[in-house]
Amino acid sequence: MDVTILAVGTELLFGQTVNTNASYLSKQLNDRGFNVMYHHVVGDNPNRLKRLLIHSLEDTDLVILTGGLGPTQDDLTKETVAEVFGRELLFDEECYRLLVEHFEQRGRKMAENNKKQAYIPEGATVFHNDAGTAPAFAIEADGKCAICLPGPPREVYWLFDHGVSDYLKRFHEKEMVYKVIRTIGIGESDLEMVLMPLIDGQVDPTIATYAKEGECTLRVASQRDTREEAEEAVDAMIREIDKLIGEYIYSYEDTPLNEVVVHLLQKYSLNLTSAESATGGAFAKSVTDVPGASEIFTHGFVTYSAEAKEEILDVPEDIISKLGVVSKEVALTMAAGALERAGADIAVAVTGCAGPTADPGREPGEAYIAWMTGGRLPSTSSCIHIETKRNERRWNRNYFCLRMLSSVYRVILNVEKEGLLPIQG
Amino acid sequence: MDVTILAVGTELLFGQTVNTNASYLSKQLNDRGFNVMYHHVVGDNPNRLKRLLIHSLEDTDLVILTGGLGPTQDDLTKETVAEVFGRELLFDEECYRLLVEHFEQRGRKMAENNKKQAYIPEGATVFHNDAGTAPAFAIEADGKCAICLPGPPREVYWLFDHGVSDYLKRFHEKEMVYKVIRTIGIGESDLEMVLMPLIDGQVDPTIATYAKEGECTLRVASQRDTREEAEEAVDAMIREIDKLIGEYIYSYEDTPLNEVVVHLLQKYSLNLTSAESATGGAFAKSVTDVPGASEIFTHGFVTYSAEAKEEILDVPEDIISKLGVVSKEVALTMAAGALERAGADIAVAVTGCAGPTADPGREPGEAYIAWMTGGRLPSTSSCIHIETKRNERRWNRNYFCLRMLSSVYRVILNVEKEGLLPIQG
Repeated sequence: MDVTILAVGTELLFGQTVNTNASYLSKQLNDRGFNVMYHHVVGDNPNRLKRLLIHSLEDTDLVILTGGLGPTQDDLTKETVAEVFGRELLFDEECYRLLVEHFEQRGRKMAENNKKQAYIPEGATVFHNDAGTAPAFAIEADGKCAICLPGPPREVYWLFDHGVSDYLKRFHEKEMVYKVIRTIGIGESDLEMVLMPLIDGQVDPTIATYAKEGECTLRVASQRDTREEAEEAVDAMIREIDKLIGEYIYSYEDTPLNEVVVHLLQKYSLNLTSAESATGGAFAKSVTDVPGASEIFTHGFVTYSAEAKEEILDVPEDIISKLGVVSKEVALTMAAGALERAGADIAVAVTGCAGPTADPGREPGEAYIAWMTGGRLPSTSSCIHIETKRNERRWNRNYFCLRMLSSVYRVILNVEKEGLLPIQG
Repeated sequence: MDVTILAVGTELLFGQTVNTNASYLSKQLNDRGFNVMYHHVVGDNPNRLKRLLIHSLEDTDLVILTGGLGPTQDDLTKETVAEVFGRELLFDEECYRLLVEHFEQRGRKMAENNKKQAYIPEGATVFHNDAGTAPAFAIEADGKCAICLPGPPREVYWLFDHGVSDYLKRFHEKEMVYKVIRTIGIGESDLEMVLMPLIDGQVDPTIATYAKEGECTLRVASQRDTREEAEEAVDAMIREIDKLIGEYIYSYEDTPLNEVVVHLLQKYSLNLTSAESATGGAFAKSVTDVPGASEIFTHGFVTYSAEAKEEILDVPEDIISKLGVVSKEVALTMAAGALERAGADIAVAVTGCAGPTADPGREPGEAYIAWMTGGRLPSTSSCIHIETKRNERRWNRNYFCLRMLSSVYRVILNVEKEGLLPIQG
């Protein structure tokens, strides 16, 4: 089935917002066997929207609209779609009740203009929106369908998972199954080279590689008549992939590295702590982003200055003055100090330079990452040296965090392999 | 002049790539007084591209195309544009010479198919591309113009600055100036209500409101004959806005709150520290995201467990056992402990529940945020209670951070207002 994705919003035409909804929806739709033919963006102007919508419904059978469902005067998507499909807007009691509830729960007064959001085109299928105030809906006529979603990406993702995805099943011809494998420690070109014998000439399942910041993911997809057949084909291919690059894979289910690490720590009831200089709290954040992290992470130290490293983590002053703040010894003593202070089983520490500039003799992107075990684990420690050769602060900080996570991941795998810990529960 | 931005590339329709070129070009064009009316994306299919290009040239006078200028078979933008404008593709000696030079300089052999990139539609204005191999060009006929740029964003930016921007001067009618104001502490609907007398019936300058997570931005734009007139109109409108909502504004220049706070701290040589429970390092991260943060932030404490609060920040055990970890007293003693430990001038602390679940009797989204001053500042402290009524962990953590930042911001403004500090340098 051919699809158009039509975004409504002047802020997109001003260039203030990037149309990430279009790429998100395209990915989801392609995964389900739809052909996305066009993306369009139009401003908050009902005449131009109407013309573009009519064109799009002529060109393709399904049009997914995003934006313009808000409470304000310039939000006119719903009115325009209703007009094009020749439907009235009707007051929907259930939508209104949920709107009122939404505001009550937040202890806020509902503005008068929010009431507009409870009107829905006659005969439309409503998708209630727990992530915001605007309900989404689908409307069908003469083999054509329009689905209207709000603009904020968070709401689009929520609604897609809670209603829209199921609704789309009526249009599927084949069943599509895909799995996303995450790797770390191998570049995209190398990954592609190693997997070439599997990728070359492969029609189904397909294998696609994507480089993300500092890591690579693989997407294995199959479209078959039944879900079972597609799943079997994907799993068989993953077994082949595993033979070639198993050592680099940390998730077979598209789970981010911070979640994988937190779940492993939970599984073994291990306590982690961190001592951060260059990442300035970003590592602790990435760990505590995972719900339930409090079970395995109790203390985090952000020691951004040399004095903080000495005062809080007992890094000896002479090590810093002799070897410099960005050194293996400082990273190791930071880890030791944090391990001791927090009474943890594993400590990870980073000292380095995130950029964009660096102290004389140093380069942005350089860092030492040390880890140390103790507590319930045998005492071990190690340190790696990283040079990203980049000066983008955000990129470097993110990459340092990933390498800290992957260090912790390897530590736990080793412990697991050597049978040093009993599995809990 | 009305403009369409037309991107060509199947990777965009697969959702593999986000169309950042469209937002970049939109910003540039709006700044120069053009009206961007549409963004379109079409795959590498000459028939659909042709139809969409013809439509776009009917709807708008200028069409900027990106993508499809590469050396491979599916790159057909140039051929299609030439056909629509009724021009031949001619071999361009200068383009060929530069292509050959490009490969020679890099010590690479030019593939045979690259030669295709030296063909240009008859009568077109060529923009040589130092950032890649595909030359860009503009073609005009009957008051309509198409400008073809390659797909890679780096090349688009380079070409825009080196040729395209100057070329566009022939079409400028008006000069556009806009400013983006950032606010915190007021919702979008309320903002619009308060500003309604300014927004209603306003033709120029225009005022648009945008909700972002936990904050709102306002865009004030004016198009006038000269840049000076437009600037004056925008500034006059901002003075009116300031009268109505000045207390909520933290930046008149679209600067994120963490940058505003770090720059203020730098200005007054004040040292900040943080004691984080619910945000788990996210606050320290947001501060250290700003280059130069090391001047004003040396220590950060992530005390995720009750024991960590006691051990690291000297929060008395009986306060926690009597009043609970999520309490005003714990937040205040955390701030006091951090202030003391770090020897800072300002400490901010948070204890709360990020969600998605909460301890019995607590709700996700509840938090206490305390701040305390000392060091070079008079001793003061205060605490606020927040209830977001949401259970999304990411949203809550981000919101808590924003409120911590805005607390620090208010503290410094107060200090500034009361003349308690000399301005440095």
